[in-house]
Amino acid sequence: MNRKKGNLFIVSAPSGTGKTTLCRQLIGELPDIGHSVSYTTRSPRPGEVNDRDYTFVDEGEFRKMIEEDEFVEWAKVHGNLYGTSRRRLEEMMGKGLDVLLDVDTQGARHLRMSWENGVYIFLLPPSLDVLRTRLKGRMSDSPEEIDLRMMRSVQEIGEYKNYDYVIVNAVLDEALTELKAVVIAERVRTKRVNPEWIRSAMV
Amino acid sequence: MNRKKGNLFIVSAPSGTGKTTLCRQLIGELPDIGHSVSYTTRSPRPGEVNDRDYTFVDEGEFRKMIEEDEFVEWAKVHGNLYGTSRRRLEEMMGKGLDVLLDVDTQGARHLRMSWENGVYIFLLPPSLDVLRTRLKGRMSDSPEEIDLRMMRSVQEIGEYKNYDYVIVNAVLDEALTELKAVVIAERVRTKRVNPEWIRSAMV
Repeated sequence: MNRKKGNLFIVSAPSGTGKTTLCRQLIGELPDIGHSVSYTTRSPRPGEVNDRDYTFVDEGEFRKMIEEDEFVEWAKVHGNLYGTSRRRLEEMMGKGLDVLLDVDTQGARHLRMSWENGVYIFLLPPSLDVLRTRLKGRMSDSPEEIDLRMMRSVQEIGEYKNYDYVIVNAVLDEALTELKAVVIAERVRTKRVNPEWIRSAMV
Repeated sequence: MNRKKGNLFIVSAPSGTGKTTLCRQLIGELPDIGHSVSYTTRSPRPGEVNDRDYTFVDEGEFRKMIEEDEFVEWAKVHGNLYGTSRRRLEEMMGKGLDVLLDVDTQGARHLRMSWENGVYIFLLPPSLDVLRTRLKGRMSDSPEEIDLRMMRSVQEIGEYKNYDYVIVNAVLDEALTELKAVVIAERVRTKRVNPEWIRSAMV
């Protein structure tokens, strides 16, 4: 094993940047990296499978997990609670698997306190105009909601400097190449490489 | 332009690791990265072209350039002098081009003092046995020279911890993928991205 243990990659992006698509493609194309299934209090959408898309729990259970410090980060988004399980993360990383977490800027800020060794990646839309067009294209939000999301996006973008990498999702293939490059490069970062592995090769 | 200016990538490796092949392939496959032609006092080998492979100068000229601080690093290797021109580096980087420098561990140590923003990459052979076999396969060195190179390699390998990345060249394609990933990832590192470029996109 060339790694000490699995690495944690944290991706944040304003809503509409294409984060979900990019993360899914990355996990499909690279070996040894996975997604940690989050817990949520919201109801499953049609087609969603428990323990695959999310682990669906009621608010009581979720609150109990918060109290027992079972989340490395959690957040309330549009009235629903979402959280990342510490146990699931540590299990994957202990096996040497990398984990890709997709959290908002607030979640990333919390994670940075306990996971300073994580790799923090910020995705940007090519422009605010494009972002607005993409949000409108979803046709799921009212004009007021879109305005609210846009305001939130501008605030979030201001935080890009707190991230290690900033990737602009103008052309999906290019952004994916960059995201993959970040994962591959971080795997050969000297501080993440297992010195035992180097010593054993040097005979 | 998304970059502030070109980045400097420094590659060191024990002799026989396959550094030259890897660097040449990298430059062939990635845009906007080039090699800065070094100065040397050794004689051209058959097929070598002045100002393409090296700029060939006599020792007097080389010494004068040292005195005038025209090298960012220089070294004596097997009785010949080799140096990297400060002017050539700055010209390429000023145009926003990345530069790949291929220097020994001593040269890298000198560079680190003035180019702390450089990206330092160490290439390792898969094992010392493989290294010895590769050196023998060249059939250009005597057994004594091979022993000397091996001793030097072991010393150099001990310095890998001073580099940002460590790549093992066991399978050429994999090592090339990792080297390319390092260049692509470093280009989207937040500290290297031009904030003006992000601001101009956010309208």
